[in-house]
Amino acid sequence: MSQLDSNWSFVDDNKVTPKGFLFAGISAGLKASKKKDLALIFAPEGSVFTGMFTQSIVRASCVDICEERIKTTSGFVRAILINSGQANACTGNLGIQHFQIATGKIAELLGIKEEEVLMCSTGVIGVPIQINDLVKNLPNLVSDLKGNNIQNAAEAILTTDLTLKKVSIETIIQGRKIKISGFAKGSGMIYPNMATMLAFLTCDAGIKKEEWDKMIAIAVKKSFNAISVDGETSTNDSFIGINAGEKIEKRFFPIIQQGIDIVCQNLAKNIARDGEGANCLLEVLVQGAKNIDDAIKLAKSICNSALVKTAIHGCDPNWGRIISAAGNSGVKFNLNHVDLYIGNAQILENGKLNKYDPQKVTDYIKSRMNGRYLVDDIVKIMINLKSGEYKGTAWGCDLSKKYVEINSEYTT
Amino acid sequence: MSQLDSNWSFVDDNKVTPKGFLFAGISAGLKASKKKDLALIFAPEGSVFTGMFTQSIVRASCVDICEERIKTTSGFVRAILINSGQANACTGNLGIQHFQIATGKIAELLGIKEEEVLMCSTGVIGVPIQINDLVKNLPNLVSDLKGNNIQNAAEAILTTDLTLKKVSIETIIQGRKIKISGFAKGSGMIYPNMATMLAFLTCDAGIKKEEWDKMIAIAVKKSFNAISVDGETSTNDSFIGINAGEKIEKRFFPIIQQGIDIVCQNLAKNIARDGEGANCLLEVLVQGAKNIDDAIKLAKSICNSALVKTAIHGCDPNWGRIISAAGNSGVKFNLNHVDLYIGNAQILENGKLNKYDPQKVTDYIKSRMNGRYLVDDIVKIMINLKSGEYKGTAWGCDLSKKYVEINSEYTT
Repeated sequence: MSQLDSNWSFVDDNKVTPKGFLFAGISAGLKASKKKDLALIFAPEGSVFTGMFTQSIVRASCVDICEERIKTTSGFVRAILINSGQANACTGNLGIQHFQIATGKIAELLGIKEEEVLMCSTGVIGVPIQINDLVKNLPNLVSDLKGNNIQNAAEAILTTDLTLKKVSIETIIQGRKIKISGFAKGSGMIYPNMATMLAFLTCDAGIKKEEWDKMIAIAVKKSFNAISVDGETSTNDSFIGINAGEKIEKRFFPIIQQGIDIVCQNLAKNIARDGEGANCLLEVLVQGAKNIDDAIKLAKSICNSALVKTAIHGCDPNWGRIISAAGNSGVKFNLNHVDLYIGNAQILENGKLNKYDPQKVTDYIKSRMNGRYLVDDIVKIMINLKSGEYKGTAWGCDLSKKYVEINSEYTT
Repeated sequence: MSQLDSNWSFVDDNKVTPKGFLFAGISAGLKASKKKDLALIFAPEGSVFTGMFTQSIVRASCVDICEERIKTTSGFVRAILINSGQANACTGNLGIQHFQIATGKIAELLGIKEEEVLMCSTGVIGVPIQINDLVKNLPNLVSDLKGNNIQNAAEAILTTDLTLKKVSIETIIQGRKIKISGFAKGSGMIYPNMATMLAFLTCDAGIKKEEWDKMIAIAVKKSFNAISVDGETSTNDSFIGINAGEKIEKRFFPIIQQGIDIVCQNLAKNIARDGEGANCLLEVLVQGAKNIDDAIKLAKSICNSALVKTAIHGCDPNWGRIISAAGNSGVKFNLNHVDLYIGNAQILENGKLNKYDPQKVTDYIKSRMNGRYLVDDIVKIMINLKSGEYKGTAWGCDLSKKYVEINSEYTT
């Protein structure tokens, strides 16, 4: 149990998870690999749900229905069914029917209403969900529900992810233990189409819908909306945050916000680090911006640049590409004020080239590309625009031949 | 001499170029390879210049000065000096001095004013131009000036381009021969930084500045601003269009516009086809859009998508990625109205999957990836949104391991 600045501590989700929440994960045979592919989150009565969904025009209908059900129940949902294998996107009316069949059946098994059940899907686009296999296995799924079972649920939502993405933290407020847990899947590809980013967060400090919505929006902006593997937004991207339990006083909200931020950023960074073909996590911190939106926008522009990503892959301290990507972000700044660092090496001071040892910077980047697959494999870039008081961070990864290989594989 | 729809014919620029324009191209030793690296365009008196420049915040100061000189002379410039080897970007006051020294010297040699000379640079960012070598060779450059010498000029502006990019066309209006010539360089990389896109067009039909500006803006929007190799905008991107000679009647402007469009699109497509590591030209036509801007924006979003580009590379008719990229373009449309074609195969009809043979579509893409390096190696995608009357086209290329290799090469 390691200590965090904010008194939040990491905890083992096999022992500690938010009070009252139950999790399940099994194999229903939806994946050719027969790995786990069906997960369930069952939240206590009175739980408050907030969902944030893909901004793409082309959305899976399951995303539309989730959004609608959260709205019609005023956020008082109870369960989320999640399947991997098929994304249930571009599947027309059949996709809507499958959603209704599956959530209706889960509602029956859990003794709740159908509109209190959400369903998220990830996997192949344009292929109908294997609804018979799914429905047949729902009783097994419900039997698997346990508090200390995030491991199974987190496994069941993965597609081509190489690593499990989950985190649990705990703090004590006025003698009361507060727990937040999250799990996610990243952007991997399955033939023939794009998979999705899904993430779920549970918290056992009760917070009213209106306030919770705001807190989740802040956390998502600084985490899931600040990462990029390849600049692609999927049809199914979804994040759902749930709180339940005794209401907590408003003066403690900043502590909860801190906890939500920690969990969301941990999961988001894991997704970026596990980007297809990635060898490191790229972290770009922009300081001295006129506002947070500008800072994140500029940081994302650098993380998204194919030329920055290939330079990092080649351990090349190519500051020209970084500055050029900054120049294309749409954020206004004066190059003559800009300081630029890669790791601890200052490359630019007030827009002018500083004396630095390129070999040392190359060695720094190389030391972060160690293939041990740790979230600490971080290449850090810092830019100070000196045009304001705000800062923001974005995360990405290097661009390797492996990325091209994974995404151009096709056998008819 | 092949015939075009519009009565414009391709001509050999070793024989025919716009009347009164002189071109030169020599080696001044600015490139390590000692290949040609210095070009000059000398336009007749009374020529009308229009420039369009990079939209990046981080611009080379030579771009700023070019823009300023076109403004202060009301477009009555006479010459453009172009060097490859060093981009003269991020070089501060020294860069400005070098610009002034070089253009001052050329003005002296040509007997014109310094402010009548522009200078464009391409090559390494952040490294001072090799000004002594450059100045020393200016008399040689001026000696090389000839009408039928676009070949030399076009060679001298290349960096890592694999192909020469030049085109000349001719038509007859009321018994008068009108010629338009253009040449360009594409987006290649030089250690340690981004090179640039440069393109130049000359025309011997006289058209007043105000009208010429409009015609050039229309042509650039539909050509150089509709291509993408990797979504990166450079510090030095410049396009300069020049006309000279006897004024032409306004009723013939549509013919001239057509000619400018042909030349600009030919060069732009050549740049995309010669994208780093590219094996084909990707052409995306969007029809049925609410306006031209929407059509081009959506087409560019597809051309820019790393997932579409890798799918094309893998000869994979991955319509889900195409539709997903369309959904992320920021253009609103209704998926239920969308028709999608890859080559002649209709994949979607009103948003629903059509019966098609994936193997045939794969074979179609494969047949375009033949490595013979022809502009006819085109993979065509067509989307009809059926939400308006407008259409637009964008061009890109496939994304290969070679792209990653070229851009992650770094030896300290």
